[in-house]
Amino acid sequence: MRLAFVQFSPSFGKVSENISQALTLADGVEADLYVFPELFASGYQFKDREELKELAEPATGGPTVERLAEWCRRRGAFACAGIPEADGDALYNSAVLMGPDGLRGVYRKVHLFWREKDLFDAAREDAFEVYDVGLARVGMMICFDWIFPEVVRILALRGAQIVLHPANLVLPDCPAAMVTRCLENRVFAVTANRTGIEDRWDEAMTFIGQSQIVNPRGEVLLRLEDEGAAVSIDVNPAEADDKFVTPQNDVFADRRVDLYSELLKPK
Amino acid sequence: MRLAFVQFSPSFGKVSENISQALTLADGVEADLYVFPELFASGYQFKDREELKELAEPATGGPTVERLAEWCRRRGAFACAGIPEADGDALYNSAVLMGPDGLRGVYRKVHLFWREKDLFDAAREDAFEVYDVGLARVGMMICFDWIFPEVVRILALRGAQIVLHPANLVLPDCPAAMVTRCLENRVFAVTANRTGIEDRWDEAMTFIGQSQIVNPRGEVLLRLEDEGAAVSIDVNPAEADDKFVTPQNDVFADRRVDLYSELLKPK
Repeated sequence: MRLAFVQFSPSFGKVSENISQALTLADGVEADLYVFPELFASGYQFKDREELKELAEPATGGPTVERLAEWCRRRGAFACAGIPEADGDALYNSAVLMGPDGLRGVYRKVHLFWREKDLFDAAREDAFEVYDVGLARVGMMICFDWIFPEVVRILALRGAQIVLHPANLVLPDCPAAMVTRCLENRVFAVTANRTGIEDRWDEAMTFIGQSQIVNPRGEVLLRLEDEGAAVSIDVNPAEADDKFVTPQNDVFADRRVDLYSELLKPK
Repeated sequence: MRLAFVQFSPSFGKVSENISQALTLADGVEADLYVFPELFASGYQFKDREELKELAEPATGGPTVERLAEWCRRRGAFACAGIPEADGDALYNSAVLMGPDGLRGVYRKVHLFWREKDLFDAAREDAFEVYDVGLARVGMMICFDWIFPEVVRILALRGAQIVLHPANLVLPDCPAAMVTRCLENRVFAVTANRTGIEDRWDEAMTFIGQSQIVNPRGEVLLRLEDEGAAVSIDVNPAEADDKFVTPQNDVFADRRVDLYSELLKPK
């Protein structure tokens, strides 16, 4: 199957223009599954929860997801993209998984970064779902989730072959850490990050780009710098089913869950 | 406190010479705590369990640990080093933690690599203990344990500030992965690897060197290539008590153990 990601610099609040820009880039490459950045149509630095509420939309029927759905239908493709999601009074930093037949899944960000905690609600319930989209089994996570090894681990244990990772990265460490995530779980990961600067808060944020696709051997198949671009590459998702390290080692079979109880103790 | 590691090429079975070589290198640098490679005195490629049994020793009273103990007493220092440990009929790939007053702890390798499974017994019980040695709280792991994020996570959750990591690395990925381990847990890690080649099996093994010390920000403070050497550096273990990422993020406080139950499910 062919995987793509779109890296670009959205303009805060210009939803329609941002979607057009992202889809125009995406239209330039053939792929089965496209990953777009976190909050790719809205922008990142919401002044407050009120402003966020204005730009948030439900996972079905809103302007962003409807255009994505139409685009997926037309192209016969899947897309994973970050949106500010409204669900009743709750507001989530979410990723939607859209296919030719419409919405397939929603991931609500579990580990919120910095001031996102003042704006968004964190996921409340079981969040790490894996979706079989025919060509592959995929899981989603968003940006700062990368620093918690638990996230990719859980997605991989549940059968994800490809981790879809919309991001708005500002810290420099994620691209290298995702190599470790792929190695330790033998999965693919597609990190679709944004670029550009937002300075609507007292502190400007520069997004690092460096979107990438990493394979289960920890090889970086594609990595951008900070250009706006869509790129794609062929991968074989079944490579992620092989947890082999040596003839006697397998990263899952070797796990000693009998010795890991500390991982779930509340602090 | 001052941390050191010793990297060198042991000769298989030449226990006394290997210890002398390692301690001579260690004598050349001042430190409070020295880390030596996995199986640093015995070598790695045991032909079979019989040969391993001949070279294995109990955690107290054997030739390797007694010389280490004497050395630690004389220098007023701590040492962590890998030995083949005999305990009744069981044989472990172990690391001992030795101080000026003798043995402080033993770590029995949990995740055995490749043919180690034909030779050694894996740790049976709670393995990931943390030791307060006055200057710092330390935990131990050995070589291939690196690929399991659970290990450093558990040690860090239990309060380890410094992870002592004797190794006989042959895969190239560990040094970079340990950067991720330190970042995601905000701990120090000292990886003491060996160099050289052993070809007592049908397949020769080349050990990669690249011993290193990484700090809780993921900065590589020291990294060797493949030379034989002992090196040391001053660190402040208290840096590892600060799990800060942003004013609203802390790598431990942000963990959502309510959502991590998959981690302990048997497969």
